[in-house]
Amino acid sequence: MTDLTPLGATLRAALDGRWAQVRQEARERFAPEDLLTDPTLDQEAHRARVFEQMRLLAGTGHPRNGFPAEYGGRNDVGASVTAFEMLAHGDLSLLVKAGVHWGLFGGAIVNLGTREHHERYLEDVISFALPGCFAMTEVGHGSDVQHLHTTATYDPGTGEFVVDTPHEGAVKAYIGGAARDGRLAVVFAQLVTGGRSHGVHALLVPIRDEAGRACPGVAIGDCGAKAGLHGVDNGTLAFDHVRVPRTALLNRFGDVAEDGTYSSPIENESRRFFTMLGTLVRGRVSVAGAAGSATKTALAIAIRYAVQRRQFAAPGSDEEVLLLDYRTHQRKLLPALATSYALQFAQNELVASLHEVHTAAEPDEVAQRELESRVAGIKAVVTWHATSTIQACREACGGAGYLAENRLPALKADTDVFTTFEGDNTVLLQLVAKGLLTEYRDTFGDLDTLGMVRFAAGQIAGSVLERTATRPLLERIGGAGPRTREADLRDRALHLRLFEDREKHVLEGLARRLRRAGAPDADAFAVFNAAQDHVLRAARAHVDRVILEAFVAGIEACTDPAARETLSRVCDLYALSTIEQDKAWFLEHGRLTPARAKAVTAAVNALCAELRPDALALVEGFGIPAEWLGAPIAAQMADGARQREATVAQDA
Amino acid sequence: MTDLTPLGATLRAALDGRWAQVRQEARERFAPEDLLTDPTLDQEAHRARVFEQMRLLAGTGHPRNGFPAEYGGRNDVGASVTAFEMLAHGDLSLLVKAGVHWGLFGGAIVNLGTREHHERYLEDVISFALPGCFAMTEVGHGSDVQHLHTTATYDPGTGEFVVDTPHEGAVKAYIGGAARDGRLAVVFAQLVTGGRSHGVHALLVPIRDEAGRACPGVAIGDCGAKAGLHGVDNGTLAFDHVRVPRTALLNRFGDVAEDGTYSSPIENESRRFFTMLGTLVRGRVSVAGAAGSATKTALAIAIRYAVQRRQFAAPGSDEEVLLLDYRTHQRKLLPALATSYALQFAQNELVASLHEVHTAAEPDEVAQRELESRVAGIKAVVTWHATSTIQACREACGGAGYLAENRLPALKADTDVFTTFEGDNTVLLQLVAKGLLTEYRDTFGDLDTLGMVRFAAGQIAGSVLERTATRPLLERIGGAGPRTREADLRDRALHLRLFEDREKHVLEGLARRLRRAGAPDADAFAVFNAAQDHVLRAARAHVDRVILEAFVAGIEACTDPAARETLSRVCDLYALSTIEQDKAWFLEHGRLTPARAKAVTAAVNALCAELRPDALALVEGFGIPAEWLGAPIAAQMADGARQREATVAQDA
Repeated sequence: MTDLTPLGATLRAALDGRWAQVRQEARERFAPEDLLTDPTLDQEAHRARVFEQMRLLAGTGHPRNGFPAEYGGRNDVGASVTAFEMLAHGDLSLLVKAGVHWGLFGGAIVNLGTREHHERYLEDVISFALPGCFAMTEVGHGSDVQHLHTTATYDPGTGEFVVDTPHEGAVKAYIGGAARDGRLAVVFAQLVTGGRSHGVHALLVPIRDEAGRACPGVAIGDCGAKAGLHGVDNGTLAFDHVRVPRTALLNRFGDVAEDGTYSSPIENESRRFFTMLGTLVRGRVSVAGAAGSATKTALAIAIRYAVQRRQFAAPGSDEEVLLLDYRTHQRKLLPALATSYALQFAQNELVASLHEVHTAAEPDEVAQRELESRVAGIKAVVTWHATSTIQACREACGGAGYLAENRLPALKADTDVFTTFEGDNTVLLQLVAKGLLTEYRDTFGDLDTLGMVRFAAGQIAGSVLERTATRPLLERIGGAGPRTREADLRDRALHLRLFEDREKHVLEGLARRLRRAGAPDADAFAVFNAAQDHVLRAARAHVDRVILEAFVAGIEACTDPAARETLSRVCDLYALSTIEQDKAWFLEHGRLTPARAKAVTAAVNALCAELRPDALALVEGFGIPAEWLGAPIAAQMADGARQREATVAQDA
Repeated sequence: MTDLTPLGATLRAALDGRWAQVRQEARERFAPEDLLTDPTLDQEAHRARVFEQMRLLAGTGHPRNGFPAEYGGRNDVGASVTAFEMLAHGDLSLLVKAGVHWGLFGGAIVNLGTREHHERYLEDVISFALPGCFAMTEVGHGSDVQHLHTTATYDPGTGEFVVDTPHEGAVKAYIGGAARDGRLAVVFAQLVTGGRSHGVHALLVPIRDEAGRACPGVAIGDCGAKAGLHGVDNGTLAFDHVRVPRTALLNRFGDVAEDGTYSSPIENESRRFFTMLGTLVRGRVSVAGAAGSATKTALAIAIRYAVQRRQFAAPGSDEEVLLLDYRTHQRKLLPALATSYALQFAQNELVASLHEVHTAAEPDEVAQRELESRVAGIKAVVTWHATSTIQACREACGGAGYLAENRLPALKADTDVFTTFEGDNTVLLQLVAKGLLTEYRDTFGDLDTLGMVRFAAGQIAGSVLERTATRPLLERIGGAGPRTREADLRDRALHLRLFEDREKHVLEGLARRLRRAGAPDADAFAVFNAAQDHVLRAARAHVDRVILEAFVAGIEACTDPAARETLSRVCDLYALSTIEQDKAWFLEHGRLTPARAKAVTAAVNALCAELRPDALALVEGFGIPAEWLGAPIAAQMADGARQREATVAQDA
């Protein structure tokens, strides 16, 4: 990192955020060989390598960050998630394996278990002496976790739970750690006692003994080859009346007495379920962060290549043109880069919120609900951004981008599943919309009776229309109404108004539409289904606004004038390219005139050209050590290219 | 295929087109195990398997179709490309390996060589006794083939060419067959004789002996692991003053006499180059076909899954909802399905044109140029369609879509490179635009002097604004002007007018814009570069119109009333979802009012719902035997699901 330009260094400081120290430690501690994996390893070798890396990682003490101080942890959730983000610049198999073990498995014991579980297990979890699994998803139920079919039936005669997989569709599927390494699993099952079901609860079920043999009654399968994440041993788990002691139940939110009496601090079954799930939100924040990191790695590779690679001579010239000097190439990469900046600021806010919620002395249910909604939205947007951007980077590198050595293939294949795991994005956006609608509940009280809101998405209980910390800022910037035609398009107040106005309009329209369904004979599903694209649009408009506000707040917090100026331009590009993508909506709803809409495209083009000279500095701002990039087309910059880029930046 | 519904059978007949017999033979001849490959094979095993499959394929006689009758071929180019399309429902490594050997290597010998080469090599090419390579792309020059750096210098002293790689950037890269199997390579090099260069020509250069050892002076590298196509042995080739006889030159378009005198039937060097390249257009048609097939396989898998998989119960109901009954799921898959139908009709026209051009008694240069432009456009559109659609299919199948056994990972990874090989899509669209601009040459004669057109894309010489066979049809349908507001949106004439009007308007605007650059001080590159997004838009609008017209012609040719009705609805969906994607343009240019633009979205939603009951029949129409799908989530349909779908279709 010795070759950082001054601008690159200040941009990096702006993006590094509150846990900058954790990022810097990671940069210094990890060598490329710690993070990167030979892409030619076969599945078994890759799994073995990741297992070994997990041990090394445990040795660094990093995983302690996320655990309570009483059990050898450091209770610094923000540091934990930030370290995870840094790790995500390397092999994502290690990342996911670490996330499953320490994040999901360990997190479930911490958040759903009680003192007895903590004392018994946490030290071995932190040290990776006890590799774990998180057995939630089933073959038949991934998104609709509330209705999974595995059962845990209490037998008061022996004081045990009987964990059972009643049919093929109830087999636990895609479980990380199941196929090779996992010894203990957190198993989600319908808890039955005294002949009555009390909804989904989690239990600790041993699946392998220390010698690696499957425990009696546990059938373990291997998911085999996947699109990516070859180093993660995903497998299936089926239970044939497996008996575990009563204390195997992670009993913070629901317990069964020796005689079989069920008790819970939360009366309502559905609310209890969502409260339990809510405590596991960290996994989703981590996936969002990992997707962001992988995207930035891909952009760094493609942009560093694009300022070195030439093709076709300009008319009347013998010199060939650099790829990044072509408008189409700028268009492929620079708006995506701007979005990555925006998302990093949003992610930093998210991590800070998570940290506050999880380290608060008293649980704050409203803050918790707000966080859940925010996480769902950001996770959906950032993982889709990863899929499309890494694809664009691959294409921008042509044949070289197809070679494994240049990392884009693995980045693409590994992150692909992020759009559908830790919550399917389409379902997550419905969850966001539900939160928004709940806020509007008073306006259309009949919705709940229709069961529509309950159906729209299954995972949020409370009322949510979150406002970011930058809300007052908007008032301060003040401003131009959304229909102004004359104002300069690079007017932050205009961007904020356009984003906010769109959100409000789409949401109100959606509410009206669903309200109409109040008719006694209305087919609730048909009404909901007809509005489903509207539901997704409402959520997306909301998340876009939250992201823009986070970017604005990030610029406000930056004190270096040069960095501020560049960030402001990047923010313009983010805002205007986002508006451009949804231009039809703004035109259809009279928010942009045709002339102004064309001007948006012209402004995006102009911003790409203006940011072109700072392309390298902008990539440096991502804070990825060049040697971590690995890709031969990008890790090294020829001296000539470096000098030319410096000159270009100076001349601009 | 015994379980085809009546509608599925007639749709299949419509899509099968002129070479239906070839398709049917392929369905009957190939068992799944002939086409599909175990996704867990390692690279070497996969390469060995593909090599063995190549021998088997040679044994079937299929490859004969594409070769001249004089040398054991059948001279049926259409049959050859169609068979290739069918093969593309299987492992795409085999497909690409076959395409490189018979299509590119064999095709170059046929089209660039003369009788002596044909007599000496073609039999061994057809039988795969002599595995070949097509060594065009270099590390430094992929898109700009005209300026590659390998040299072939004639030495009149020995009557030999000296083939040389002058520097690292001139190494031949990504060459299929180079790493393991290839023995003879068609090498593209700058031909130098008598101290003068005559541009790029192709020579036959032995690279390995029969024992598999590299020939003296030939350095062979292995591209190693790639994103996909693991069974194709891509490698690098570098030549250190390798001597080949004078007759190694494929001398149809340029020859060197013993004394070193150069001669060619085509005076102009650039025109000669593009003529040579033009004869190789079959490769691009084949890639387009393969991309179309892979996309249809992915859609078949995702749609068959979506009519069996349920998630979340509807409000007030215990029964969970089928994925394909959700509007968002229909939106993900059905417009893509409609586009696949449209592209298949366009591909069928393309293959027919190719067949006519290549089997014509007299070469028709205008037809050849038109074909090249058409191929470039369709190839770009269909390969991007493949990338986005297969991705959508993966996500639509959730975790199951991420498992290798369900084939979507390989379909995605294997086809990924299609957008940048056989011509980078961005470059290809510029080539299409250049053809369109050339047609407008009279309007702005100064363009050529500027060198802009020459720069815009490097591969077409002649004048091209092709019109499809359906052109008169448009007049017959007659009609509604583009600004009509009242007419039903499902009006074919309206669709055609909207597509055509957009093409015309964008192209005229582009021409005006480039014309303005005529000023004496204009920086030609800056002007071109500023218009580059406009250039791509012009090409895209043109290709969209060509595709729609092909669809319309396909419906006209279909005689079954039920199939016609369904196809017409699918065509509506294709046309309206294409308009919806570019809605902002239609709004900005006053072609749609806001109200009408919203109605387009409503019509797309309605069409998805209307086509939902026919989803299975529409997939059957793709003509892929269910057992070829391989994917466990799709190959088998549970009896219950099959019956339910039949009922749904009947009730609709």
